[in-house]
Amino acid sequence: MCSAITLRHELFPSDREAIGRIIRSSNLFYEYEVGVALELVDERLAKGPASGYHFIFAEEPGRVLGYTCYGPIACTKWSFDLFWIAVLQELRGKGIGRMLLAETEKAVRTMEGKRIYIETSSRHDYRLTQDFYRTCGYAIESVLKEFYGPADDKMIFVKELPFP
Amino acid sequence: MCSAITLRHELFPSDREAIGRIIRSSNLFYEYEVGVALELVDERLAKGPASGYHFIFAEEPGRVLGYTCYGPIACTKWSFDLFWIAVLQELRGKGIGRMLLAETEKAVRTMEGKRIYIETSSRHDYRLTQDFYRTCGYAIESVLKEFYGPADDKMIFVKELPFP
Repeated sequence: MCSAITLRHELFPSDREAIGRIIRSSNLFYEYEVGVALELVDERLAKGPASGYHFIFAEEPGRVLGYTCYGPIACTKWSFDLFWIAVLQELRGKGIGRMLLAETEKAVRTMEGKRIYIETSSRHDYRLTQDFYRTCGYAIESVLKEFYGPADDKMIFVKELPFP
Repeated sequence: MCSAITLRHELFPSDREAIGRIIRSSNLFYEYEVGVALELVDERLAKGPASGYHFIFAEEPGRVLGYTCYGPIACTKWSFDLFWIAVLQELRGKGIGRMLLAETEKAVRTMEGKRIYIETSSRHDYRLTQDFYRTCGYAIESVLKEFYGPADDKMIFVKELPFP
C-alpha cells in the first residue's frame, strides 16, 4: 500500500487541522498535548525555518496520513529532537511511521546532525511506541523518574546517525 | 554583605542589559548562548507569565547582581526547569547564588512544583557550577553522552522538593 504514499517537507496552513486529527486519532495524548503540537505548527507558519521546527508529511492524494516534527537543539553542535511522530490510528503498523522516521533521519544528516533524541513516557499505553523506536534503532539512554507525574517516567531514546 | 541584597520577582525591560552583563562576566558561555538567555527575557516581556518563563533577581541599590530564570515543563504535572542561574563573576562564592536558588525553590513549591531539573555541561569549565548544584542538594540523574558536542556531555541534575 505504501506505493501510493508520498513524502512532503513543506508545511501548509491546512496541515494544522490534519495534524490535530492525526494526533487525536491515537487516543494517546491529553488535549493539552495536542495544543502543544499545534503551537509548533503555528510557530513554523509564523517564523519559517527560523522557528527551528521542521515537518515531514506522509500523504496520499487528498489525505495526510502521518507526520514528524523535528529540529536542532539550541546550544548543541549536532543534536536534534524528534518532537512528534504520529500516524492515523487506523493506518498504524503499515510502515508509514518507519518511512517517516527514515526520511527524518535523512533530513537531519543533511543538516549535519549526528544524534536524534526522542522523549517518551514510560506508561504502559506507550509500550507499542517504545517498541517502534527500538525497532528503528533507537536505544534508551536515560530514564528520569516521575518526570511527567506519579509513576510516569520520561524515557530518553537516542540514535547516533552514521556519518556518510 | 548579603544584608544589603534584596530579591525581586518582577522583570523590567532594563534587566535585559544587566542579564547580558552578568552572563558575559562568567566567560563561561558562548555568545550564542547569551542570545538564547536574552530570548527568554524577550519572551517574558512580550507575553508575561503566559510565556512560562519566570525570573528572580538579586540586587543592591542601583545594581543587579545575579538572577535565575525558571519555569514549569509543559506536559508534566510537577516538573520545573531551572534555565539559568548566574551571578556577576566578581561576586561569586558569597552566597548570592545559593540565596537565589533557595528563593527559586520556594517559588516553585508555591506553583505546586515538586521536581527541579538543571541541565549543565560535563566540561571541566563547569566543575565549580556542578559542585554548587551538589552542595545545594541536587543530584545527577542522567548523563547524555556527547549531547552538546565532542567530549561534551549533558548532565541532568534533579532535586525533589519536600512538600510542605
